[in-house]
Amino acid sequence: MNDTTTPDAGRLADLRIDGDRLWRSLMDLAAIGATPLGGVRRIALTDLDRQGRDQVVAWFRAAGLEVRVDPIGNIFGRRAGRDAGRPPVVAGSHIDTQPSGGKFDGNYGVLAGLEVVRTLNDRGIATVAPVEVAVWTNEEGTRFTPVMMGSGVFAGVHRLDEVLARTDLEGRAVGDELQRIGYAGTAPLGHPVGAYFEAHIEQGPVLEDSRCTIGIVTGALGQRWYDVTVTGMNAHAGPTPMRLRKDALLAASRLVGEVNRIALEFAPDGRGTVGFMQVSPNSRNVVPGEVRFSVDFRHATDDGLAGMDRALRAACERVAREVNVAVAVAEAVYFPPCHFDAACVGAVRESTRALGFTHLDIVSGAGHDAVYVARVAPAAMIFVPCKDGISHNEIEDALPADLAAGCDVLARAMLARAGVA
Amino acid sequence: MNDTTTPDAGRLADLRIDGDRLWRSLMDLAAIGATPLGGVRRIALTDLDRQGRDQVVAWFRAAGLEVRVDPIGNIFGRRAGRDAGRPPVVAGSHIDTQPSGGKFDGNYGVLAGLEVVRTLNDRGIATVAPVEVAVWTNEEGTRFTPVMMGSGVFAGVHRLDEVLARTDLEGRAVGDELQRIGYAGTAPLGHPVGAYFEAHIEQGPVLEDSRCTIGIVTGALGQRWYDVTVTGMNAHAGPTPMRLRKDALLAASRLVGEVNRIALEFAPDGRGTVGFMQVSPNSRNVVPGEVRFSVDFRHATDDGLAGMDRALRAACERVAREVNVAVAVAEAVYFPPCHFDAACVGAVRESTRALGFTHLDIVSGAGHDAVYVARVAPAAMIFVPCKDGISHNEIEDALPADLAAGCDVLARAMLARAGVA
Repeated sequence: MNDTTTPDAGRLADLRIDGDRLWRSLMDLAAIGATPLGGVRRIALTDLDRQGRDQVVAWFRAAGLEVRVDPIGNIFGRRAGRDAGRPPVVAGSHIDTQPSGGKFDGNYGVLAGLEVVRTLNDRGIATVAPVEVAVWTNEEGTRFTPVMMGSGVFAGVHRLDEVLARTDLEGRAVGDELQRIGYAGTAPLGHPVGAYFEAHIEQGPVLEDSRCTIGIVTGALGQRWYDVTVTGMNAHAGPTPMRLRKDALLAASRLVGEVNRIALEFAPDGRGTVGFMQVSPNSRNVVPGEVRFSVDFRHATDDGLAGMDRALRAACERVAREVNVAVAVAEAVYFPPCHFDAACVGAVRESTRALGFTHLDIVSGAGHDAVYVARVAPAAMIFVPCKDGISHNEIEDALPADLAAGCDVLARAMLARAGVA
Repeated sequence: MNDTTTPDAGRLADLRIDGDRLWRSLMDLAAIGATPLGGVRRIALTDLDRQGRDQVVAWFRAAGLEVRVDPIGNIFGRRAGRDAGRPPVVAGSHIDTQPSGGKFDGNYGVLAGLEVVRTLNDRGIATVAPVEVAVWTNEEGTRFTPVMMGSGVFAGVHRLDEVLARTDLEGRAVGDELQRIGYAGTAPLGHPVGAYFEAHIEQGPVLEDSRCTIGIVTGALGQRWYDVTVTGMNAHAGPTPMRLRKDALLAASRLVGEVNRIALEFAPDGRGTVGFMQVSPNSRNVVPGEVRFSVDFRHATDDGLAGMDRALRAACERVAREVNVAVAVAEAVYFPPCHFDAACVGAVRESTRALGFTHLDIVSGAGHDAVYVARVAPAAMIFVPCKDGISHNEIEDALPADLAAGCDVLARAMLARAGVA
């Protein structure tokens, strides 16, 4: 079935990670950059990021991992396998946070990987392929764009020199800041990866709503973003009869409804969101002459996104005619849909079933480092519930039992791919 | 028919104001505070307002008018009648402008009144009742609220002491600024007015659209303004399925459509406008958790406004249920509808017909000084077209022939009410 040795059912049936140790490490890391409301502010390539990295590297070394850092600052901690020629089976995520971020987004994937290594050490389990834990640089993209910077450079999506030259609002460059915090490494960029697993809180409400513990992530939605500008004519709200208006907000509002309708037509994987809207002149008694708004479409397939695109453009033309305004649609971003590796997804599913957790297949609506890694290696993700589906927020929360369950699934899936020696 | 002497048809049939002189005065006044794009910025109680007032007062005195200033800075220039005991027949408007205002809004009504006086002087026509030209303080309300300040105090809508204490953003008070520019007068506040006429550009597109020269203004729409807050839940645009959202912008957008539908249901005098909208957090990939927007309803009758109010509240309840959000409606402002005096409106209509101008009856959608004066005196308004219906804008424009036509109507209507001696 796999090209690696299947875990010995007898020996591994009772393999469980240490949920308390995982939780303590999460809380210890969350203390670096802790915010008053219980969240974390540890923005990429700041002093706090360095402190967080130093802590994780210290834990890696204490667990016997060989630590390497590549030129974009990605950190890899490797546990040797019996067959040094095999590419490693990697678990990872990121430890940078949003400005008002939580304790779990990213951090969980890194520390779950570390907990797997610690458990293998405790049990004296050797693997055929090496096992590795990865910390990707600047996933959040808060201070420096692009988002998912480290994994994007690793996967060849972005050029290293271009990304090193990116600056923040104060003009400081990625390359200089990596030097400053001591994480401009020299390890070869983009080494081979045998399989990649990323455990992550769901950042949405589906698992909680379905009362499931594990989300078996089969892929990530593609994203197609637009900037729409509606141009009508400013007019006094009083003297201008309804029939002589060119009301840009009336047209934009109809299009918000159309975006919603289109998403529902492309159910269940369609998403349509207008998150940003700017009205001009935005005065109580003036019919708005211009409205700019964003459209964020997501779908599991390119065909779905193409259909949503056609429906949006048709709706814009129709509403422009109906309301007597001009509507301009500019495409801003296109992320193609991602389909995770069948064997990796299968390893997650079999591990989940073997452990007896409630589960459902889920497509990630958000981007993750795994989406870029999937371009160069077999990859999959494991989701666990987060409270009320809330993330990117200081009140982000998750249950210790759910985090431990996801880590148990991760351990079994990694062993399935790495092979027990 | 009227309690004043009807103009002598033989003597007055050929009475015409001097359109060129009116235009030159408009252009001369527009030079004070002229903007590069051809507009005027002459904000109430500034040095430029003083310069404008000084120019108008100089013209009043040159035309033989007796000038008085009341405690809120309203200027009245009176031409005596044969019967000093009769209350004056007044023409007026304002000369303050919007920050990016035009040459005609307000200024036209004042200078048309002045042109009527100049024409009476040229022809040696005496009237039974005195004839007066009024300049109302701070109609625009740009720097100091409330709008229509001078006429509102004159009509007893606002208390003088309260209004004198109002401050601008820099903390300067109305009373102090009136003193500073020399227009804190001592004339008695709120003297009797026999009839009031205000000539004004339409500030809307109806006359131009109907190819009519004169709008016989029968009243002004009542206004009912609301602040609406929609509360949903912020959520990530990616991971949050459509069915689990509480999208405040989706709900607000439906309500924009409802405001439009309600206005159309209350045609032809219904107006419904959402001019202001603020989305939170207003980020491209976050489902908006809160939206605040304004509603501006206008109608010619209180019953109409009450019906629109009920329809809005019903729509808010329905949309709140449909979209799973909370909608709070707070009423912000209520101006009752205004019906102008039948005899004054009749004088405008008869004058328009006698002069042979194309015309239509029209209800003002905007507020004007005449709306407040109408609370204490018989009043009416005369509208003339403005280019593309545009006002409160530096490109505000009107044709000299239309301005002259409106002034001809004003002259005849004033004589009809004042009586030729």
